[in-house]
Amino acid sequence: MAPGVLNETNTAAAMPTGEEGAIGMAAIGVALWKYVMRYAPHTPTYFNRDRFVLSNGHTCIFQYAFLHLTGYQAMTFDQLKSYHSTRTDALCPGHPEIEHEGVEVTTGPLGQGIANAVGLAMASKHLAATFNRPGFDVVSNHTWCMVGDACLQEGVGMEAISLAGHFRLNNLTVIYDNNQITCDGSVDMTNTENINDKMRACGWRVLDIEDGCYDIAGIVDVLEQSKRSTDKPTFINVRTVIGLGSKVEGTAVAHGAAFGADDVAAQKRAYGFDPDAHFVVGEAVRGFFADLPAKGEKHVEEWEALVGRYAEAHPDLAGRFRKRVRGDLDGWEELIPKSFPEKATASRASSGLVFNPIAKELDSFMVGTADLSPSVNMIWPGKVDFQNPDLRTSCGIDGNYGGRYIHYGVREHAMCAISNGLAAFSPGTIVPVTSSFFMFYLYAAPAVRMGALMRLQAIHHATHDSIGMGEDGPTHQPIELAALYRAMPNLLYIRPGDSEETAGAWSAALAARETPTIVSTSRHALPQLFPHTRRDGVLKGAYVLQENPAATLTLIGVGAELSHAVGVAEKLKTEHGVEARVVSFPCQRLFDAQPLAYKRDILRRHTMPAVVLEPYAPNGWERYADAAVCVTRFGHSLPGTAAYAYFGFDVGTLTKRVLGYLEKIKGDELLRGEFVEI
Amino acid sequence: MAPGVLNETNTAAAMPTGEEGAIGMAAIGVALWKYVMRYAPHTPTYFNRDRFVLSNGHTCIFQYAFLHLTGYQAMTFDQLKSYHSTRTDALCPGHPEIEHEGVEVTTGPLGQGIANAVGLAMASKHLAATFNRPGFDVVSNHTWCMVGDACLQEGVGMEAISLAGHFRLNNLTVIYDNNQITCDGSVDMTNTENINDKMRACGWRVLDIEDGCYDIAGIVDVLEQSKRSTDKPTFINVRTVIGLGSKVEGTAVAHGAAFGADDVAAQKRAYGFDPDAHFVVGEAVRGFFADLPAKGEKHVEEWEALVGRYAEAHPDLAGRFRKRVRGDLDGWEELIPKSFPEKATASRASSGLVFNPIAKELDSFMVGTADLSPSVNMIWPGKVDFQNPDLRTSCGIDGNYGGRYIHYGVREHAMCAISNGLAAFSPGTIVPVTSSFFMFYLYAAPAVRMGALMRLQAIHHATHDSIGMGEDGPTHQPIELAALYRAMPNLLYIRPGDSEETAGAWSAALAARETPTIVSTSRHALPQLFPHTRRDGVLKGAYVLQENPAATLTLIGVGAELSHAVGVAEKLKTEHGVEARVVSFPCQRLFDAQPLAYKRDILRRHTMPAVVLEPYAPNGWERYADAAVCVTRFGHSLPGTAAYAYFGFDVGTLTKRVLGYLEKIKGDELLRGEFVEI
Repeated sequence: MAPGVLNETNTAAAMPTGEEGAIGMAAIGVALWKYVMRYAPHTPTYFNRDRFVLSNGHTCIFQYAFLHLTGYQAMTFDQLKSYHSTRTDALCPGHPEIEHEGVEVTTGPLGQGIANAVGLAMASKHLAATFNRPGFDVVSNHTWCMVGDACLQEGVGMEAISLAGHFRLNNLTVIYDNNQITCDGSVDMTNTENINDKMRACGWRVLDIEDGCYDIAGIVDVLEQSKRSTDKPTFINVRTVIGLGSKVEGTAVAHGAAFGADDVAAQKRAYGFDPDAHFVVGEAVRGFFADLPAKGEKHVEEWEALVGRYAEAHPDLAGRFRKRVRGDLDGWEELIPKSFPEKATASRASSGLVFNPIAKELDSFMVGTADLSPSVNMIWPGKVDFQNPDLRTSCGIDGNYGGRYIHYGVREHAMCAISNGLAAFSPGTIVPVTSSFFMFYLYAAPAVRMGALMRLQAIHHATHDSIGMGEDGPTHQPIELAALYRAMPNLLYIRPGDSEETAGAWSAALAARETPTIVSTSRHALPQLFPHTRRDGVLKGAYVLQENPAATLTLIGVGAELSHAVGVAEKLKTEHGVEARVVSFPCQRLFDAQPLAYKRDILRRHTMPAVVLEPYAPNGWERYADAAVCVTRFGHSLPGTAAYAYFGFDVGTLTKRVLGYLEKIKGDELLRGEFVEI
Repeated sequence: MAPGVLNETNTAAAMPTGEEGAIGMAAIGVALWKYVMRYAPHTPTYFNRDRFVLSNGHTCIFQYAFLHLTGYQAMTFDQLKSYHSTRTDALCPGHPEIEHEGVEVTTGPLGQGIANAVGLAMASKHLAATFNRPGFDVVSNHTWCMVGDACLQEGVGMEAISLAGHFRLNNLTVIYDNNQITCDGSVDMTNTENINDKMRACGWRVLDIEDGCYDIAGIVDVLEQSKRSTDKPTFINVRTVIGLGSKVEGTAVAHGAAFGADDVAAQKRAYGFDPDAHFVVGEAVRGFFADLPAKGEKHVEEWEALVGRYAEAHPDLAGRFRKRVRGDLDGWEELIPKSFPEKATASRASSGLVFNPIAKELDSFMVGTADLSPSVNMIWPGKVDFQNPDLRTSCGIDGNYGGRYIHYGVREHAMCAISNGLAAFSPGTIVPVTSSFFMFYLYAAPAVRMGALMRLQAIHHATHDSIGMGEDGPTHQPIELAALYRAMPNLLYIRPGDSEETAGAWSAALAARETPTIVSTSRHALPQLFPHTRRDGVLKGAYVLQENPAATLTLIGVGAELSHAVGVAEKLKTEHGVEARVVSFPCQRLFDAQPLAYKRDILRRHTMPAVVLEPYAPNGWERYADAAVCVTRFGHSLPGTAAYAYFGFDVGTLTKRVLGYLEKIKGDELLRGEFVEI
């Protein structure tokens, strides 16, 4: 492991364009992939593998090069050349993507990866505490995470760091590629904090490497030390030089721009390569990494043998373990209550009625909250907190790593990003559930998006989803947020209207094995509308709640305000002789997936106008309705009922507004073909 | 200032419901409002007042009580009782709101307030550096910020803390109401970091108060010490007890729930009050605060006299200063170029052409970036960075507090939250401009929202706003984000199609004095479409780019893909004999504000179908178009042109898709009344 090894393994020569951070990190890569990490290139999904996260995802060529050199079969030499090419089937996108062998999570948006890594480390801790027995460490992997300067500046990264220190995740190592350069210039233009002291204050062990470009032996030593940490996660501060060996070495220019041809040639000469040869990996380099696939298969065989012996010693536990490894969630359907109390119930409470029995019985679920336990109703009887077992809290609620209820603190963004890590550990082994007020899923939105992009099943219980939440006022009342989540690809945003529909919402969420879901519920008590409400109707996105053959109007009700639509239909009929049918419409995305004939039959817009009642920005409802009673300004601090009245969302005013619309379209026939806010 | 003072001024007796944090903070309030802060209750907008931010906004009754006691005239005793009432004109909403006397910023979403406070302190530093002269400290105020445990856990708070330490904002004091209780229980369930060490590592001075409930003299002393800090912001760690004196003292129950009647009575007895008397403030208490309005007016008079002498000594400077105090932005119209180069230009570069001359000439603008200076084109010739003047960066780019270009680091969320503070200092005195990739305005969305809610003018330059941004792939390609911002109240989201339209976008943004704007631009070069494109058309949201009396179809083009619509119209005509007109549609919100007749005349949907071409989720376009060529999945990592082709957004494929739609509606007449994704 002489410094010379670095020259042989330096991958700059194979690099089609810039990403100069990758060069400065080359020695770290050799230390990790050649000497330290446990993984199996020919069995990339080996369950007990170490997880590696490249949080500074823009340096992805670093990871791609090592995936190729260490023998991942999909990452052929041709594929390695596909970086920044027009190949539509490239395995080398501009940031690492979870779909590809050897990539644990998709990264790129800064700070997400380190939070994912915290989730991956928590998953290991939790599974180990649940399934390991003396002599049978069936889960014993380590999580490694590379970060740059940026991930340590991003809020979501700092939230995750704080929580990882609190949980004392000794199975997590964060390696800081400290090159002190970002796009704008030197990092000291914008950050002069003492990062080592800060990490120590957050409960991390800190180790330093002064010569991160060449001191492979030193790096291997600290990485191994970090694996042996007994009580803290480890932060390794590695000083590197960006664009090492190039003309732009150590400057911001090296961050984004491609090297010029001359500079590439000069670098190759300096390393003893032929400057005119492109895309060459020498035999010495190939030989250096050649043992890794076989070494990996040995890890796999040993682990499988261990699990075999474990099955003999602990057959029941091994059965459960194998079910979890398969990602099998069977059993939730039967646990959903067949019926619910008739009394008015907040749908946040309905969520508890529906899901808590499942969380109690099926240990695949890890349920967390951003400090809103009393509000979100996600605590099941006998829940145990996920905590370091040595922690003694002053309120007396302790836990252990086997616990499945997570107090994330007031860290909504990290909650969802960490949940992505929990879900990414292995498909379906852990299904994370998060909870907070709906409005604060705006804080978490970048992580919710990453979950949708990665096709990870995560369920977000978002409560207080209406102006009806009341006194907290406009900062807490969502108006426009549903528009984001209804538009987000591969996400289900569902607003159930009562307990029966809440059962449907959770059923949809639990069945969506590659799609995250937001179950969006009310703070305040809602009248129960069954038998009109139907959980199977929710699964179709929208359904007819009350048919009426004489109808001249369809009223669309949604979520916390579904009963308002029912009330308006009643009042229109009894007081004004106007016949209306009522459609419940909890989820646009599920409805969109129905056949055209079903959609037309539900909406019937070709025969009568449809009016949606929802105190949100109406953007997107234009597809399903001709008019909306909606809210296009921010909310107002008032008790819930008063807030509804203030915005004209009481049944009396709503009825008048709908009648006004019916009058208006009589007087202007073009309006019938236009969307009207009423 | 004996402890007895606290009893007299304890406001619990006047409190209609919970918010028990306020009780534990009472002594801090006395120290601030009675002894330390410089402000004028009868002239609440006095320019050189200290700014106070209640970042833990849920304890708002704390602030309301002191506003009443110190003599703010709007906060009558009747108003104080309106907290959590059904009064629609209450000045005591569930969180403090900027509209009301004595409230500097709206708070509630945790972590925002402390970032606003950093912005307020930066504003003072900047204005002082710009306008103060020896003997004339016309700007010399201090910023005070209360935080709870939560604001220190939130990412946006930590980003702002890191930056405040870097900037050495010695005019900022953060007071930590350290009661170690959040909703879920004791803080040590989720946070066990050493906060004092962490703050020191971030470049803050740390002072401690052990008895924060009673030691008013000690609190006053450390607050005064913090005002004298010469080189660092100050963090005061004040240990308090939540729900002090109640049965639930020091517990999580005290956090959210209202005290019971018995408990309120017992507390009153303990403090020597009549347990049956409600809403009483004793004369001793009133007398204790009685001198404050006069003291405030004296501050105002002294400052006005100082400004008067300043005007004599420095007449030109004082003229500029008074213009800034008035919030006068006059002069930008003439600085916008009348014409632009004809060569293809990325609209991110067009933004620079339009705005940099304005930023150079008008010092009202403070322009920042989240570490994307080379990408966003917001640097004007001769720009000076906002920095501590003693800082020497390793890249050699230094600055001073008079600088107006801000390197926010990779901290998008804090960038926008700090900008809200800059804008809130005094209406129009500073107009903040931020910049980043559009996708990362999802990180900043909670702060952008707060700016819209607070009616603050801030301009966000969001670049790389299309799949055409290319290789960075799906993590960086916005698909659904525009749906959020198009739905957000009081925000302009504008996608200009070339330089001429970019001039219109910035004109709209600069004219919107109580509304933030996102100017959303392309990474890649766009063909210039003038004279068809018109800046005055942008101000109306949409306009006819190419009229065609023979048209049977309207094509709607938007932003980076506007030229695609023009290309499709051309191809439809020349190759298929289909006549189309082209509408440019950069901003839905501006269009919505036009008269109905204008809107119908532009869209003409009653006479022919309209098809919008935009590679985003189509949600919301249904109001303006009958069909969309759109993207409803996440993006793909490919070079820009290849990415467009991959999603069928090249002119050839787009033309075929539009023709396919025209065929389809012939075969199914109902489709003409439904929105179709094609």
